[in-house]
Amino acid sequence: MPKKGLSKKERQKELQNLLADDPFLTDEELAEKFRVSVQTIRLDRMELRIPELRERIKAVAQENYAKVKSIGIKEIIGELVDLELGKRGISILETTEEMAFEKTKIVRGEFIFAQANSLAIAVIDANVALTGVANIKYKSPVFAGQKLIAKAEVTRVRQNKHFVFVRVYDRQKEVFRGKFILVSIDGGVSV
Amino acid sequence: MPKKGLSKKERQKELQNLLADDPFLTDEELAEKFRVSVQTIRLDRMELRIPELRERIKAVAQENYAKVKSIGIKEIIGELVDLELGKRGISILETTEEMAFEKTKIVRGEFIFAQANSLAIAVIDANVALTGVANIKYKSPVFAGQKLIAKAEVTRVRQNKHFVFVRVYDRQKEVFRGKFILVSIDGGVSV
Repeated sequence: MPKKGLSKKERQKELQNLLADDPFLTDEELAEKFRVSVQTIRLDRMELRIPELRERIKAVAQENYAKVKSIGIKEIIGELVDLELGKRGISILETTEEMAFEKTKIVRGEFIFAQANSLAIAVIDANVALTGVANIKYKSPVFAGQKLIAKAEVTRVRQNKHFVFVRVYDRQKEVFRGKFILVSIDGGVSV
Repeated sequence: MPKKGLSKKERQKELQNLLADDPFLTDEELAEKFRVSVQTIRLDRMELRIPELRERIKAVAQENYAKVKSIGIKEIIGELVDLELGKRGISILETTEEMAFEKTKIVRGEFIFAQANSLAIAVIDANVALTGVANIKYKSPVFAGQKLIAKAEVTRVRQNKHFVFVRVYDRQKEVFRGKFILVSIDGGVSV
């Protein structure tokens, strides 16, 4: 936790360290950590030539998309910021008003499901993977504007069945978890 | 099952009976039943002044939307063709290429989930309802262009917990089923 009352130079150094550690911190999160305004963080980033979050995410995601076999890149809901095929993956979804219920501004369950489900598919090391079963739990409402981090882990593979556990976080708080069983088809599809 | 070799007049009479019974039969389904071309069915409909499926669905849906309390009309994925608030509901989703995986043309799981989830919310007799838990199963792949019929039934209500069972059909075949537990909030939301 950065200390209060840092000089600008100290803050900028600390800011670089923090982003090296977690490139997906938002300006709001950084502002909170340093107890300065979001505007101050933006100016710091500009001086340090650190691009905005969306650009940082895209830059990291680029190299992961090349690894994906089972799903089209545009079909992944969120940006894929980490991927070890057949093992684990991480995606980030910046939620928007369009994803939320008009009445409550709470993000609609299907968008969080879509992030988790598409990540579960993306981590599978096969040409085609379809969701068979999912047991999911919404633990806490997510409001539009929040940045969701989904972490998927392949926990077991039995023949063509892939068990994937996905947790979705809003900052440190787990807001969703789901157990998925996916079925891989390597030769293509005929039904 | 209509007999083969009906006269045009007989066929048109039978067609009216069938659509009175199930207004959501597609032209393709009718053509198959009568063993005639889709074009013939279209001409029959024109002569009988029966609007196309999409219009028939919309006409029926209109009166149901007025009953919904828990969700915005545009937030329901599919058209709501039947609703008994607090008890049951039916929606129809015409799937499109945009909803499918590019590689396989199989409709992406999140769209079927969205249809089922939004219908489960729509049937709840409360001002706000959020998904808490869902246990879902995809039983058979759905290809783009298929018409999905979702049927939701409230099976139990305990205080603010609503248990909803949703089945989704492609013609007579069950392609998806899900058990949802929704939480209703009647005073609004504060988290």
